[in-house]
Amino acid sequence: MTPECTPRFLASDNTSGICPEAMEYLLKANQTDDLAYGNDSWTARAADRFRKMFDYDCEVFFVFNGTAANSLALAAMGRSFHSVICHELAHIETDECGGPEFFSNGAKLLTSPGVNGKLTPEGIEALVTKRNDIHYPKPKVISLTQATEVGTVYSREELLAIRAVADKYDLRLHMDGARFANACAALDATPAELTWQVGVDALCFSGTKNGLAFGEAILFFNRDLAEDFAWRCKQAGQLASKMRFIAAPWLGLLESGAWRTNAEHANAMAAYLARRLASLPGVSLMFPTQANSVFVELPPVLIDYLRQRGWTFYTFIGAGGVRFVCAWNTTTELLDDLLADMETGLRSLT
Amino acid sequence: MTPECTPRFLASDNTSGICPEAMEYLLKANQTDDLAYGNDSWTARAADRFRKMFDYDCEVFFVFNGTAANSLALAAMGRSFHSVICHELAHIETDECGGPEFFSNGAKLLTSPGVNGKLTPEGIEALVTKRNDIHYPKPKVISLTQATEVGTVYSREELLAIRAVADKYDLRLHMDGARFANACAALDATPAELTWQVGVDALCFSGTKNGLAFGEAILFFNRDLAEDFAWRCKQAGQLASKMRFIAAPWLGLLESGAWRTNAEHANAMAAYLARRLASLPGVSLMFPTQANSVFVELPPVLIDYLRQRGWTFYTFIGAGGVRFVCAWNTTTELLDDLLADMETGLRSLT
Amino acid sequence: MTPECTPRFLASDNTSGICPEAMEYLLKANQTDDLAYGNDSWTARAADRFRKMFDYDCEVFFVFNGTAANSLALAAMGRSFHSVICHELAHIETDECGGPEFFSNGAKLLTSPGVNGKLTPEGIEALVTKRNDIHYPKPKVISLTQATEVGTVYSREELLAIRAVADKYDLRLHMDGARFANACAALDATPAELTWQVGVDALCFSGTKNGLAFGEAILFFNRDLAEDFAWRCKQAGQLASKMRFIAAPWLGLLESGAWRTNAEHANAMAAYLARRLASLPGVSLMFPTQANSVFVELPPVLIDYLRQRGWTFYTFIGAGGVRFVCAWNTTTELLDDLLADMETGLRSLT
Amino acid sequence: MTPECTPRFLASDNTSGICPEAMEYLLKANQTDDLAYGNDSWTARAADRFRKMFDYDCEVFFVFNGTAANSLALAAMGRSFHSVICHELAHIETDECGGPEFFSNGAKLLTSPGVNGKLTPEGIEALVTKRNDIHYPKPKVISLTQATEVGTVYSREELLAIRAVADKYDLRLHMDGARFANACAALDATPAELTWQVGVDALCFSGTKNGLAFGEAILFFNRDLAEDFAWRCKQAGQLASKMRFIAAPWLGLLESGAWRTNAEHANAMAAYLARRLASLPGVSLMFPTQANSVFVELPPVLIDYLRQRGWTFYTFIGAGGVRFVCAWNTTTELLDDLLADMETGLRSLT
Repeated sequence: MTPECTPRFLASDNTSGICPEAMEYLLKANQTDDLAYGNDSWTARAADRFRKMFDYDCEVFFVFNGTAANSLALAAMGRSFHSVICHELAHIETDECGGPEFFSNGAKLLTSPGVNGKLTPEGIEALVTKRNDIHYPKPKVISLTQATEVGTVYSREELLAIRAVADKYDLRLHMDGARFANACAALDATPAELTWQVGVDALCFSGTKNGLAFGEAILFFNRDLAEDFAWRCKQAGQLASKMRFIAAPWLGLLESGAWRTNAEHANAMAAYLARRLASLPGVSLMFPTQANSVFVELPPVLIDYLRQRGWTFYTFIGAGGVRFVCAWNTTTELLDDLLADMETGLRSLT
Repeated sequence: MTPECTPRFLASDNTSGICPEAMEYLLKANQTDDLAYGNDSWTARAADRFRKMFDYDCEVFFVFNGTAANSLALAAMGRSFHSVICHELAHIETDECGGPEFFSNGAKLLTSPGVNGKLTPEGIEALVTKRNDIHYPKPKVISLTQATEVGTVYSREELLAIRAVADKYDLRLHMDGARFANACAALDATPAELTWQVGVDALCFSGTKNGLAFGEAILFFNRDLAEDFAWRCKQAGQLASKMRFIAAPWLGLLESGAWRTNAEHANAMAAYLARRLASLPGVSLMFPTQANSVFVELPPVLIDYLRQRGWTFYTFIGAGGVRFVCAWNTTTELLDDLLADMETGLRSLT
Repeated sequence: MTPECTPRFLASDNTSGICPEAMEYLLKANQTDDLAYGNDSWTARAADRFRKMFDYDCEVFFVFNGTAANSLALAAMGRSFHSVICHELAHIETDECGGPEFFSNGAKLLTSPGVNGKLTPEGIEALVTKRNDIHYPKPKVISLTQATEVGTVYSREELLAIRAVADKYDLRLHMDGARFANACAALDATPAELTWQVGVDALCFSGTKNGLAFGEAILFFNRDLAEDFAWRCKQAGQLASKMRFIAAPWLGLLESGAWRTNAEHANAMAAYLARRLASLPGVSLMFPTQANSVFVELPPVLIDYLRQRGWTFYTFIGAGGVRFVCAWNTTTELLDDLLADMETGLRSLT
Repeated sequence: MTPECTPRFLASDNTSGICPEAMEYLLKANQTDDLAYGNDSWTARAADRFRKMFDYDCEVFFVFNGTAANSLALAAMGRSFHSVICHELAHIETDECGGPEFFSNGAKLLTSPGVNGKLTPEGIEALVTKRNDIHYPKPKVISLTQATEVGTVYSREELLAIRAVADKYDLRLHMDGARFANACAALDATPAELTWQVGVDALCFSGTKNGLAFGEAILFFNRDLAEDFAWRCKQAGQLASKMRFIAAPWLGLLESGAWRTNAEHANAMAAYLARRLASLPGVSLMFPTQANSVFVELPPVLIDYLRQRGWTFYTFIGAGGVRFVCAWNTTTELLDDLLADMETGLRSLT
């Protein structure tokens, strides 16, 4: 991450900027003064647009970032002595510095393995039935990430199976939608089909990774869980006074359809990259490329070489695993440059 | 706040949008991809610019909003069983829905009265010496607001006197700078003169009220208090992944000098309004107008009339108190319209 | 509190030891090993005995002390962004070092004045209707202390009036029963008459002040509020592994009737003391003596004199207010000694 | 745990009652009234006795139970965004229902495997060096259990090696001494030799498992970490008003030497049991029996048979693992009865 030449960005979809559709609305929202704290002329419109797009009368809230969105939703779905079941690679477990535990005042995460970064009904059931004494934090919520942290997606059938186990044990279902748009695009599914129609109680839908500067939407399909949630956001430092600068760009994404075309583009770029990588010698894909992330095992010397060439990316699971993430503005030119550098590297290093 | 005609905004400086200087830098920062989580090319520059402007090698952090800035700083300055001494009208006491208590996991606020919204050494000392048993949360921090919640400012002498009492009882000094720029302008003082030179340990400097969409800077002059503070921000959902969209607009404010000219303008507008109000019959100013807020006692029927005419403002301290806040973009035309409506109202209502 | 001769204790009912009835059961419970964590042969019996005594199928939990009992109950009755309405002299506000805020992760206490240490429907309503915006923590619970912190008691009529305002605003009603037994004795009322029959949702019933070493019972008449409460106690460090040493002494109090005779005795001693004090020159009672505490205004020099003579007591509300508390083992001899010292002091000091 | 005949207790050392030496002092402390909140005549004596016994001027605090002792100490040793490194079988991870996370307001536990229930320098180092970004809670404390959760003990050499890695990474060292007395006895070591002399910063020393009804001592050898700790205990519901009923029984244990003879006895009983078990066919010890717990792999049908015969014990690590714990009052007769039942069971079941 300290490139020695001009950096070229494939580390995450959060290295990209604000997409044109979002910027257009941001500028519009700046043309006049407006009421604060979400009482402006944009926030209600954006929330209604979400309800229309999901074809559901859900509760909609906007917060600043993903740590907060997931942590606040989870805090609302249980209490401090409950536990949240998630995949061992779940972002809430590995990359939030204890955020969910902080916002919930102590709820433990119980982790489960699972191929391709996905929770399974069996894995969930094993955690629930392992113990039922009061020394064990009582499982209350299942949190799954769609698309997953390794770039795969849960099919509708997989989601329904998880909902069934949730019903069996009276668990609530939370979806970390950091890349929810990419999942919709990958599965050619509507937002409704991947959420309330399969029993999701609450979704955290990321705008930041989809082309905004900041801003995540939290949608409660189980409206009971949203009781007094606005107070929770306020207390936790997640009520924007100039809320319209989150809501308006979101509306730009939704009204223009960019929320989906951005995701389709990013997914297509990842597919392109994966396809080309698969043909390189000494390179092997680690997971199926279903959304906008590509995970690949590279020789360590190649990793060093790419970093020297300015490429930014994360390593993942050991020294040889590498993650490339495509975004709404990733170009084939950029990917071709990467592939060319890889080929050069592989040649010279062997 | 539900005006029946075109709303006209004097409720708060957070109803204004993004000022041109901030917008220019926001657009610049959007021209290329950049590293996430503050490792971009803007964040360090903005932090350095703060250090230069304050003439001090302080620690600088950026968070999303004021609730978080104040609450996180206070949490870092004490522990859950400590208490924070503040004015009874302090925003952290009256308008944060328990935010400071939430972020600190339970620190109580001990409130003190004081004329013109200002803490006094005597008031602070009374709270500290009231009790010293372990059933009373041990005072650890003094929090004062500069400019205050009623539009007045602490002079340097007043700040030094508060620092003296802080020293006497080993208390830390926090400054809620929601309108810090306005205080600098009002006192014709440098940022240094109103902070570390008078013993302020930490300042929360609001950008939102100064012309940004979002973004507050937390400056620790007492660097020990900033230990591992970046982790605290992260855990609490206050680390922006696209940090440059907070940092760059801040840099725009600082490099252009707009941080101060915006404040000077807002103060001048408030002074203009106060001067004109003072001459209206049946209208009395509640506090000296030293920064950008004007507090005035109005006849209740006039308040209703103004709301019907679309004016947005808060009532304050009883039914008759009203607050008008001027911002970087408030115009004399707007204020003249308000005054004209007041005169009409006063005539017709009597 | 640092007497220079043999201390004589009237500071609080927690300076007394374990009463014989409690000790007898403690010793019994120690005759054999038993299951841990409340699965022993005593805990269920004690809980059932509470249900019988209250004539209600309530949920019963045992915790170590009053800070925890009240704080855990309040945490269960609301969420972090809610507020608790209590009297400005309430123990939870003045003497818990932020305990309720800690256990609830930030719920604010909103305080109300009220003569004789009692909340009034009007005072409660004023706090509820003061604001309804999200910057104000939403009122959710009323907490009252029975007997009050100043030794008075709420009548059934007063409790019913408070329940009416609770119903009007959908608030839950918590009773801090640090001296609940004394209130029952004072009002010649059954436990049922002072709790669920007047709409109390949860009662924290102190055993410590009633003759135990440790141990408070939390009774939820509103059973929904007790959902998973055992987990809450465990997580918060309030599940005793050798629970029988709390439960058995409680059972001793209940089966023997000592819970009430202890209280009656303490009340009678307080009444005796108050009666005698009222006849002393220069001494005036501050509140009606209805339970086991006597509050009296004394000349400061007399206060010093009494301390020198080894008397332990708290001062209260200013330099001249003094609280004497009688307990299950207070004797008339002790009180006569106090009165004699007072008379001597008053004579010699004037 | 629901035996069908008279229960016989080997489930834990918390099924035993109060030992005679503790009871004697409890009764003594009940002979007179005394000051509350630890200002009595016993608490300071007990604390001094700890200092003498550890040959160190440490800070000493008493709390009700082990959940609280460990959680409060850990909360004082770090902040919410720090992490605590512990063994994957550590009680704080597996059996506290999120207590450490609750008291610390979100600190994550990072777990490490290790043979015989022991952390290793390598395991600790792996967790510390794994990542150093702010998305990973910064390691601040190592917590080890002495004796361990599987009945083994850390040697002084092992402790010194862990202290070395703590020094290398600026970590604090916490010792969960739920069975600290048993470790001292097992290693024939003084309390000093196993704590501050090997760099332990804080020890939670259990009295409950050593023969008290309730009560743990927290000893800070690193006194800086104890700053204002009394307030922390108070706020968290761990300040006993009748503190002498914790302190006096502790003093009984310490002055009589029972703290150690109790542990020696329990260890001897465990050694006896282990020796005899090792000779049974179809039975294998799971860990070395070094303290007062015996872990043994039994055929499932034998486990059922023993439960039917009234034996209480926990299963552990899969269906076949069983833990027997000996206490200060365990007798060879009881163990012989167990062994006889086992032999009968093994014969009849095969």
